[in-house]
Amino acid sequence: MSADRYLIKNKECIDAAILELLPEARSYPEVIHKAMHYSLMAGGKRLRPSLVIAAAEAVGGDRQSVMPFAVATELIHTYTLIHDDLPALDNDDLRRGKPTNHKVFGEAIAILAGDALLTQAFLLMTHSALMPSIPAECLLMASHEMAVAMGSGGVIGGQVVDLESEGKPVGPETLEYIHIYKTGFLFRACVRSGALLSQASKSHLAALTQFGAHIGLAFQIIDDILDIVGDEKVLGKDIGSDLSKDKATYPGLYGLGASREKAEDLVEKGIGCLESFDDRADPLREIARFFVQRTH
Amino acid sequence: MSADRYLIKNKECIDAAILELLPEARSYPEVIHKAMHYSLMAGGKRLRPSLVIAAAEAVGGDRQSVMPFAVATELIHTYTLIHDDLPALDNDDLRRGKPTNHKVFGEAIAILAGDALLTQAFLLMTHSALMPSIPAECLLMASHEMAVAMGSGGVIGGQVVDLESEGKPVGPETLEYIHIYKTGFLFRACVRSGALLSQASKSHLAALTQFGAHIGLAFQIIDDILDIVGDEKVLGKDIGSDLSKDKATYPGLYGLGASREKAEDLVEKGIGCLESFDDRADPLREIARFFVQRTH
Repeated sequence: MSADRYLIKNKECIDAAILELLPEARSYPEVIHKAMHYSLMAGGKRLRPSLVIAAAEAVGGDRQSVMPFAVATELIHTYTLIHDDLPALDNDDLRRGKPTNHKVFGEAIAILAGDALLTQAFLLMTHSALMPSIPAECLLMASHEMAVAMGSGGVIGGQVVDLESEGKPVGPETLEYIHIYKTGFLFRACVRSGALLSQASKSHLAALTQFGAHIGLAFQIIDDILDIVGDEKVLGKDIGSDLSKDKATYPGLYGLGASREKAEDLVEKGIGCLESFDDRADPLREIARFFVQRTH
Repeated sequence: MSADRYLIKNKECIDAAILELLPEARSYPEVIHKAMHYSLMAGGKRLRPSLVIAAAEAVGGDRQSVMPFAVATELIHTYTLIHDDLPALDNDDLRRGKPTNHKVFGEAIAILAGDALLTQAFLLMTHSALMPSIPAECLLMASHEMAVAMGSGGVIGGQVVDLESEGKPVGPETLEYIHIYKTGFLFRACVRSGALLSQASKSHLAALTQFGAHIGLAFQIIDDILDIVGDEKVLGKDIGSDLSKDKATYPGLYGLGASREKAEDLVEKGIGCLESFDDRADPLREIARFFVQRTH
């Protein structure tokens, strides 16, 4: 199955599960739940939950068993988007072609909606009754994994260095730090979590860790490229917004051609890490290829 | 031992554990870790961690076994303070007599420092290697408990209703909702977590849940009273700041005398819930009394 078809099939199940696992939009107090739904249901390819599922399947697990955990990773991703877009941070008005959360609900509710999504994610990840086939130790390990990835030594650390680097000359080391921590860490954690939840062997877990790290960095490099060459309508955000903010990017440092080569190389290396896996890892391989083929 | 002495003794251990369990202030990227340390070490009586510890001790657990989880509750409390103080929310310049986090580090870092503290809290709560004597199922249940308490159906829900009620006439039901959810839920979750981590019996857990709910509400009523009559120097924030924001408060609705009576009554009811406990629950009883005796 091609990555596109796999992702579309997953997206339907994941979207249904999100609606099932989130408090209803009309539950009290309404405004916070509406704000959470607004950003969650504003589109998105559900790449992170799909990676949790594909990694679980690659080591013999199954989609339904890990679904609440997979949904949690989309909640986490959405929380980072809402907070990143705030006026005090990136000050973005558009996200996926729609007004950003704070533009619709105001800053206070946007801050709290991000907080609530992060909290709801941990609520789901630790909800053993929702994932009865997964041992408590595995849920605990995977939840811990996610907290480590999202903390000040992970995604938040990357976001801080990104903010501090705006308008300054940035060397290759800092740029790689930003990309690996701000974007790559969550992808890596999604792959590792899927494996941990499905009791992967140590060698499989190590291989998947490498795979996740490689494709996570590739994803951000392509993101940088699309920010320059992408189609504004398809991308749903202001093209060149990184440039206008004087943000550090791969094409800015290495040029477009070398950046694309680097991303393609990373994806090939990532797929190479999966040599010892059988065809149950094909969805992972397809998602990896999709990471560099995507146009939005 | 009096509550004061118990809390002071606990505070020393808890402060030491916080420093041990938080990334160092100088670790990269420095600014986020400095911001996390700044608000965490700005004072505070460590009431929430002390409740985790006292509840654990009440059912036969011990302080050291639950310490990382106890520390996590202080991180969670501090995250709520940092985000509440933001210009888009309560817009407070002072907290515990010191400039608020965003006044020192700017709004962007304050938002991220709150996010990082919440994330670090879940990192600690799910860190089984730090709490080897506690079964994974107990850590998972207690972490889940905390996520439920802090989410959009808990503390964040209370905060949202509080924000929405500013400047509007508020009835007794809405006021009680705000107080129970915004403040009480975390206290209740701390007591329940200490009990869950120490494998309390169902009947003990039920009794402690009632205890936690009663004293949590009492705490907030006294907070409202102190906001009117407290000593600005001791309290470390602007006296009357709730009044000036036209916030819903107990004294505003019922008057000072009736509010104090209600708080004292709640504490006595809470202590009454502990009838079946032996003297290992004395610290819990003392903390409950301290909740209404405190002057700051």
